[in-house]
Amino acid sequence: MLDPVAEPLVWTIDAQVQDTHFRLDWVGWKDVGWRSFMAAASDLAAMGAQPLAALSALALADTVDDFALDALAEGQADAASVVGAAVVGGNLARGRETSVTTTLIGLTPRPILRSGARPGDGLFLAGRVGMAAAGLAALERGAAQPADACIDACIGAWRRPKALIVEGLAMRGSASAAVDVSDGLSRDASHVADASGVVLVIEEAALRARTAGALEAAAALLGRDALALALAGGEDYALLVTSPASSIAGFERIGVVEAGAAAVVLQRADGTRVPVDPQGFDHFGRSSG
Amino acid sequence: MLDPVAEPLVWTIDAQVQDTHFRLDWVGWKDVGWRSFMAAASDLAAMGAQPLAALSALALADTVDDFALDALAEGQADAASVVGAAVVGGNLARGRETSVTTTLIGLTPRPILRSGARPGDGLFLAGRVGMAAAGLAALERGAAQPADACIDACIGAWRRPKALIVEGLAMRGSASAAVDVSDGLSRDASHVADASGVVLVIEEAALRARTAGALEAAAALLGRDALALALAGGEDYALLVTSPASSIAGFERIGVVEAGAAAVVLQRADGTRVPVDPQGFDHFGRSSG
Repeated sequence: MLDPVAEPLVWTIDAQVQDTHFRLDWVGWKDVGWRSFMAAASDLAAMGAQPLAALSALALADTVDDFALDALAEGQADAASVVGAAVVGGNLARGRETSVTTTLIGLTPRPILRSGARPGDGLFLAGRVGMAAAGLAALERGAAQPADACIDACIGAWRRPKALIVEGLAMRGSASAAVDVSDGLSRDASHVADASGVVLVIEEAALRARTAGALEAAAALLGRDALALALAGGEDYALLVTSPASSIAGFERIGVVEAGAAAVVLQRADGTRVPVDPQGFDHFGRSSG
Repeated sequence: MLDPVAEPLVWTIDAQVQDTHFRLDWVGWKDVGWRSFMAAASDLAAMGAQPLAALSALALADTVDDFALDALAEGQADAASVVGAAVVGGNLARGRETSVTTTLIGLTPRPILRSGARPGDGLFLAGRVGMAAAGLAALERGAAQPADACIDACIGAWRRPKALIVEGLAMRGSASAAVDVSDGLSRDASHVADASGVVLVIEEAALRARTAGALEAAAALLGRDALALALAGGEDYALLVTSPASSIAGFERIGVVEAGAAAVVLQRADGTRVPVDPQGFDHFGRSSG
């Protein structure tokens, strides 16, 4: 039971399915609990909401013993504590396949949608992009993964993402549209472009400035392109926001919103523009960058 | 987004997993959508709540095509309409195994819990018990199931249960405790007995009066005992309520609450009492009646 609420409620549900969203040779049960919770909480961050409470539904294969279940619940509780909500109940069922479904309620006086971006707005980003994808690429190599602190940082980004609740609260006063980057910057940006009927222009130099450091180094070790990882990689749970404001606390400006048929374009340093395919990780198996 | 609410919120989540909760040779996709929604809504009925809205998270094996998905969503929407809520969003993921997870929000000025039963209260039941279990027993026989209208009625009870929302609203003014019968009358009654620290006395004659008719006939055709089905069979989503009131609209009195160590007992017509094992269907594979 939750007390009556004086603000509009927002509500989300997200599922993480074993061997679709995670593999146990990549992640421990505690991390599974953590990241499944954060993936759901990130939806609330993108709406500018303060998480209030969560329920969890677990389907457990019979290979999941009590120790694994305790670790999973501990990861959920840790994540819940960090975002200021609590897991107040749930459901447990047996299945052949393990999955963790999390539903969260949050409060916000003004929910931010994907449809409010307007020409002239700035395009702002909080959090990392491409790191989790680089971490996943390293994990997929198994024993052949490069040993380096920057690789470890990327693996940590994939295993332990953090929903940007504080940044979400900071942007809600001025944001015209927002989305969390769960499927990849280019794909999630295209959701905003489509819903708002605008062109989102990402400035390559601004994005590259954000990929310097660990991502650049990890990409080199993995033989991947850092910019491509930043555009296509999901699961960092960054926040992408449009706003008429000149700045937003915790965000960096990476582009502008223009009028035109819905699209996402990358603007090179020389002013030329290339269309960005809405790629990224798609759980239904379409193109993945 | 939901508007601010002036009453306490109640909230539930329930999952139906293929081959744990349903098999596709027993049930069509539309029925899967219907019964998964009703199973979740029944939790709100037991709290005396009016459902407000629902989210659904689907994990879909790649054998589930667009037609199946449409049928599933149609079954959910039909059930949602009947209980006066709407499916306002959800999540879609691929998995090896299909599951339907439903979360529902409801409103009630006074949520009814399992812990409020007091000695002297009456024990009241609304809805059917044992019918769905008889239907499931028939379905498990496949082509060898008896052909009879009472069997069809039981199969219908299993495929198309109905959450007793109206009965839940009727009882909330006077109920001291309530539970929905999802795992079997004896098991769910034991949840109330344990939470309240009381003895629930079920009068055999009163229960038998409710098993007359289709259940009695179906049980005979299946070689099963109707009373055992009524005590152990789940998934009818009846409501079991304790209350100091002498009657509750839509409910029949089937026993009393007494002081003593938490237990559920069956009182025979001659006044002798037998303990009722908290059996019933357990998704984790313990005893099943």
